[in-house]
Amino acid sequence: MNVNGIPYRTIWVKKDDARTVQVIDQRWLPHRFVVEDLKTLDDVVVAIKEMHVRGAPLIGVAAAFGICLAILKGSSDKDLKEAAAQLKATRPTAVNLSWALEKELDAIHQCHLTEQKAEVALQTAQMIADEDVETCKAIGKHGLNIIKEICKKKKANKINILTHCNAGWLACVDWGTATSPIYQAFNEGIEVHVWVDETRPRNQGASLTAWELAQHGVPHTVIADNSAGHLMQRGKVDLVIVGSDRTTVTGDVANKIGTYSVALAAKDNAVPFYVALPSTTIDWALTDGVKQIPIEERSPREVTHIRGLVEGEIKEVLLTPAQTPAINYAFDVTPRRLVTGLITERGVSPASREGLLALFPEKAKVHV
Amino acid sequence: MNVNGIPYRTIWVKKDDARTVQVIDQRWLPHRFVVEDLKTLDDVVVAIKEMHVRGAPLIGVAAAFGICLAILKGSSDKDLKEAAAQLKATRPTAVNLSWALEKELDAIHQCHLTEQKAEVALQTAQMIADEDVETCKAIGKHGLNIIKEICKKKKANKINILTHCNAGWLACVDWGTATSPIYQAFNEGIEVHVWVDETRPRNQGASLTAWELAQHGVPHTVIADNSAGHLMQRGKVDLVIVGSDRTTVTGDVANKIGTYSVALAAKDNAVPFYVALPSTTIDWALTDGVKQIPIEERSPREVTHIRGLVEGEIKEVLLTPAQTPAINYAFDVTPRRLVTGLITERGVSPASREGLLALFPEKAKVHV
Repeated sequence: MNVNGIPYRTIWVKKDDARTVQVIDQRWLPHRFVVEDLKTLDDVVVAIKEMHVRGAPLIGVAAAFGICLAILKGSSDKDLKEAAAQLKATRPTAVNLSWALEKELDAIHQCHLTEQKAEVALQTAQMIADEDVETCKAIGKHGLNIIKEICKKKKANKINILTHCNAGWLACVDWGTATSPIYQAFNEGIEVHVWVDETRPRNQGASLTAWELAQHGVPHTVIADNSAGHLMQRGKVDLVIVGSDRTTVTGDVANKIGTYSVALAAKDNAVPFYVALPSTTIDWALTDGVKQIPIEERSPREVTHIRGLVEGEIKEVLLTPAQTPAINYAFDVTPRRLVTGLITERGVSPASREGLLALFPEKAKVHV
Repeated sequence: MNVNGIPYRTIWVKKDDARTVQVIDQRWLPHRFVVEDLKTLDDVVVAIKEMHVRGAPLIGVAAAFGICLAILKGSSDKDLKEAAAQLKATRPTAVNLSWALEKELDAIHQCHLTEQKAEVALQTAQMIADEDVETCKAIGKHGLNIIKEICKKKKANKINILTHCNAGWLACVDWGTATSPIYQAFNEGIEVHVWVDETRPRNQGASLTAWELAQHGVPHTVIADNSAGHLMQRGKVDLVIVGSDRTTVTGDVANKIGTYSVALAAKDNAVPFYVALPSTTIDWALTDGVKQIPIEERSPREVTHIRGLVEGEIKEVLLTPAQTPAINYAFDVTPRRLVTGLITERGVSPASREGLLALFPEKAKVHV
């Protein structure tokens, strides 16, 4: 999507330098637009772990490019296994990491000429990135139908959509998952207004979603996460769309912490609650999200401190008394009973095993 | 309660100077402990409006002292009416303001000697403050029984209590409403641990509740508001206690924005959800909280910016892109169906007209 009018992706190989991967370093948004050069496996590991790049689809793609950089240093099975293990250990919740790494290693294993392995790795990573763009576009098309249906029911060409965190193009390679239907509706001339949950503690809504919507010109309003229920109670939300970091085959959704509360409020006020996800975030082996999905616990400092712009500088301020203990779960699980539907690249499915397997019948043979 | 080991109230008449009211200026907590002198009606108006003092019970008491300062400048009916109107206009949601002002003006009207009016005003304000302390103590006693009951069921002398915002002694004169049962349980040797919702956008949980619990030595952990549902889903919360800014006679509860979401999560996980309130926050004339309680909308700047400590200074940092629109509702309404019980100074009531009128039968004649 556009940044100051120029089309960007979140990750790409540097022009005329196949040994450097470039990413938008999202830690500095919305205050500064910084492009970072990643030249080694360690650079990629740090970029994922420290959230220079984040979002389930993007960290999958970044991990694939991580293998491309690792292979330049050593292409033995052992080297690659170790690199993959290091990349996989960066973040525990999203399943895209494992998925992308497997895909990458499979492709490399099928290549028997050592001197071609690096090239195959790069082609595969590029293909994973390109596929993500197509997937997000398709999610947007299916989500757009839901938006049109709601507009038709309301007999109005306008809609208020609430989203949580950033499941935008910054979380993917382009388009986004939850935002893809929003951008496509906007591009078709539907009057879209987005309620952007700021999404504490890391404030990806306030810093990333607000920024990317503004860059594309989509009207939006940032709210404290606490306001979502109130807005729904007052009839000011027509639709909720969020992303997912891992979805069970039964339709339970692990997503950014606080998604569960948004889903409860949507249910209580009969607001449709949709989850937009590439099928790569589906964990076909899991059936109970609350019991089985590992929830990442991050540094308490993300709760007790926050970063923002003051007098032209980005600084971190302390919010609590100095020694206050805090706990910081990064994700929660929304049980399937609260999910109106899953918007995938192949269409919209109920949050159920039957629904998902109808869209992805090839998965029935493998896992279930 | 204690501040650095010295007992404080939130508001008092300055020693040897009856023309000055002193308050803890809560804007600087938890980073600095500042006592502010209020010498004029305008000082009090600003202190309430700009939230140097906040919390339904405390702003009622502050308004009463505001009349004491106003009367020093002019004690005619017109003067007092104008002063009361100015004080009442500071904050729209809490009903304590009107209640305290009425009580104050009634007492003054009954005094026929002009030279005694100031003295009567001061005595009445002092009485309102003292009554608030007694009320909070009684709320604590009744809430303590609920805590003991839960401990008994768990067969353990320990409990995890979640609270939202600051319904602590800083919101009252002493003890607090939601925190009073917590302090009393702690004082009796029950192992209490408190989950403190940070309570965006003004972060009264992270800055005030965390501070006052630490001062009293009560174990606690600050969480992003988004984590409350997750903790309940994982069985880590035994009880929720929050305060109220206005309660309808039917049991609907207006409280800090986000309370409704906490109540939904409590309901979904069968966690008891109690509201602790002095009866002065009950609006006996209202029957439908969602439709009838006015919800204050505050500056969007409270969402887009936040204040914290950096390099020894308190600074405000920008969290969003510079021109991002934001909206800032200060309260929401939790429907009575989500409330397990109301803890008042006269005992615990179901969230219903019948329950409240059984505890406060004298109100049946007046309003219903």
